[in-house]
Amino acid sequence: MHLNIAVLEGDGIGPEVVAQSIKCLRSVEETFGHSFTFEKGLIGASAIKKTGNPLPDETLELCKRTDATLFGALGLPEFDDNPKAKVWPEQGLLRLRKELGLFANIRPVKVFPSLVKQSPLSKAQVQNTDLVIFRELAGGIYYGVKTIDEEANSATDTCTYTEAEISRITHLAFKSARSRKKKVTLVDKANVLETSRLWRRVVRSISESYPDVELNCLFIDNAAIQMVLDPSQFDVILTDNMFGDILSDQGSVIAGSIGLLPSASVGLEHAMFEPIHGSYPDAAGKNIANPVASILSMAMLLQHFKMNEESDAVVAAVLKSFSKKIVTADILGSSKYGTNYVGDFIADNIM
Amino acid sequence: MHLNIAVLEGDGIGPEVVAQSIKCLRSVEETFGHSFTFEKGLIGASAIKKTGNPLPDETLELCKRTDATLFGALGLPEFDDNPKAKVWPEQGLLRLRKELGLFANIRPVKVFPSLVKQSPLSKAQVQNTDLVIFRELAGGIYYGVKTIDEEANSATDTCTYTEAEISRITHLAFKSARSRKKKVTLVDKANVLETSRLWRRVVRSISESYPDVELNCLFIDNAAIQMVLDPSQFDVILTDNMFGDILSDQGSVIAGSIGLLPSASVGLEHAMFEPIHGSYPDAAGKNIANPVASILSMAMLLQHFKMNEESDAVVAAVLKSFSKKIVTADILGSSKYGTNYVGDFIADNIM
Ligand SMILES: CC(C)[C@H](C(=O)O)[C@@H](O)C(=O)O
Ligand SMILES: CC(C)[C@H](C(=O)O)[C@@H](O)C(=O)O
Repeated sequence: MHLNIAVLEGDGIGPEVVAQSIKCLRSVEETFGHSFTFEKGLIGASAIKKTGNPLPDETLELCKRTDATLFGALGLPEFDDNPKAKVWPEQGLLRLRKELGLFANIRPVKVFPSLVKQSPLSKAQVQNTDLVIFRELAGGIYYGVKTIDEEANSATDTCTYTEAEISRITHLAFKSARSRKKKVTLVDKANVLETSRLWRRVVRSISESYPDVELNCLFIDNAAIQMVLDPSQFDVILTDNMFGDILSDQGSVIAGSIGLLPSASVGLEHAMFEPIHGSYPDAAGKNIANPVASILSMAMLLQHFKMNEESDAVVAAVLKSFSKKIVTADILGSSKYGTNYVGDFIADNIM
Repeated sequence: MHLNIAVLEGDGIGPEVVAQSIKCLRSVEETFGHSFTFEKGLIGASAIKKTGNPLPDETLELCKRTDATLFGALGLPEFDDNPKAKVWPEQGLLRLRKELGLFANIRPVKVFPSLVKQSPLSKAQVQNTDLVIFRELAGGIYYGVKTIDEEANSATDTCTYTEAEISRITHLAFKSARSRKKKVTLVDKANVLETSRLWRRVVRSISESYPDVELNCLFIDNAAIQMVLDPSQFDVILTDNMFGDILSDQGSVIAGSIGLLPSASVGLEHAMFEPIHGSYPDAAGKNIANPVASILSMAMLLQHFKMNEESDAVVAAVLKSFSKKIVTADILGSSKYGTNYVGDFIADNIM
């Protein structure tokens, strides 16, 4: 199979971790006889510095005409600390998601048996955790009308959802549950928000077409508790953009390091694959960043194109790195292995 | 001192846990020579069932003319499961907060040394946790314009904040930090939300009048991670209504049981004291609910009226119940002690 892949390295540790994924893709190419081409584009703080724009037109076009996008990480503190800034790196990512129609962010949270000890939670709590979060990614308060009234010194954000927006991701979530443990948990705040009540109504009605899948509803505050107390109770979690952002980052802790977890953002025509973690500018260029989240995101890319054997081979190589303790220091404090070495090891073990 | 206290038991386990607080207040009365009178009012599901209104006028008037309100818990699943309901229990609480001008919900999260083992997190992670969350309680998406468009099948919630709303709670948070570890962490999503950017601007500018207090800003998704990984890094957390709801419930897990944590909701003229936990209808009437969160909320009431010695005596009695293992089953699985017995023990040990 031939794939032309857009590569957006972004900021901080982005370039280093993406480089390991490309290494692994080269190895997949060889082992399985595929052909992958890569084209780089600018995004985020590095794009602002070079072009003034966090998402230059060429980058958007690149992502539109390629088969899929591999994304690193984005953001630099100099932008966070300037609340009056007119452009900031995150706008690039938000616009890219919108323009590509990426409406579902899929975040699997799985505890690898060899890493159970890594989790800040006890073995009993986490060992059976195997859940996937379906976060709505193209609507809600992220994209609603925003106003700032300098005179009145007030600001407003608007959260809107339509039935169509809720419906498309709900179907994805239920389909996924069918091939898993057959449970969907809708997380919302229906005792306060009108949009949550619409979510409940739409999801309940869609659930009737999936009689083999059980639906539960949970308030976000309770979900944040359950995610720590008993994450293994969950199978598929379905939630909106804002709640999904919080809950999936919280869930990432379970696995033992945020440097382990991948995600796929999918739409009808495009798909993008990116680690959950941020750009960690403090770690940039030091060869200490964990490349596993990026590599597992790349494995989700392979799966997206039905290269299941290839994807499994990548995951197997990652598991081997765990069992041989070829891991970065976030996983094993005493580890001497850097980003590059771990990337090489995984690439060399794809077979 | 004489205090006239409004008592809103609410639903589920509300009446049982509040009864233990009243018992303890009777004991404080005797030991310290005060006089407390109590007047009950209806709220929540039980108010809907009797009057059709989750916050009857008499209840609101009661809370307005008394010195303070002791609140139990509220909500019943039969209302949650009916997304088309026109009234539901939570509306009573939300309106009460608004009408009483309770703009700050103060939630201390402390790990009691004798209960460290209770926490789902490791001893090393939690043993030094002693933080307090200042959650804005009268604004934001909870109270913004909500619309539902039945034709278009779309719904909207609006989140608005004014400088004045942010300012009043920010001053409370900084004043509290001054008497503590002198650190304020503002939790927001300033890389996405306009209201968060206003929060950052206002809080930064106010922080200049508190040069002895350090200010940090953290995105909510990162805060949700840090709250699990390293809660002891926090001193005072300042955040908006929605983020505060999620983060404080998540934080409640740290202490080992959500049945332990109290809160105070304060405004310029009124104050209300309530446990963090919900109404747990399944446990109602079974004499198994943990009364400690309600009793510690009552201790915050005493402190609010500068009865520090009295408040300390209540806390000391609670600690004694922990060390004597006179606790409910949520704390010690094998415990045979019920709500009433634990309440009696604590009341009898206020001295
Ligand atoms: C960078 C930020 C805008 C983004 C989000 O909130 O969606 C990030 O936290 C994520 O989860 O991908
Ligand atoms: C019952 C509900 C409306 C309420 C809230 O979200 O404020 C509760 O969760 C709380 O935190 O007191």
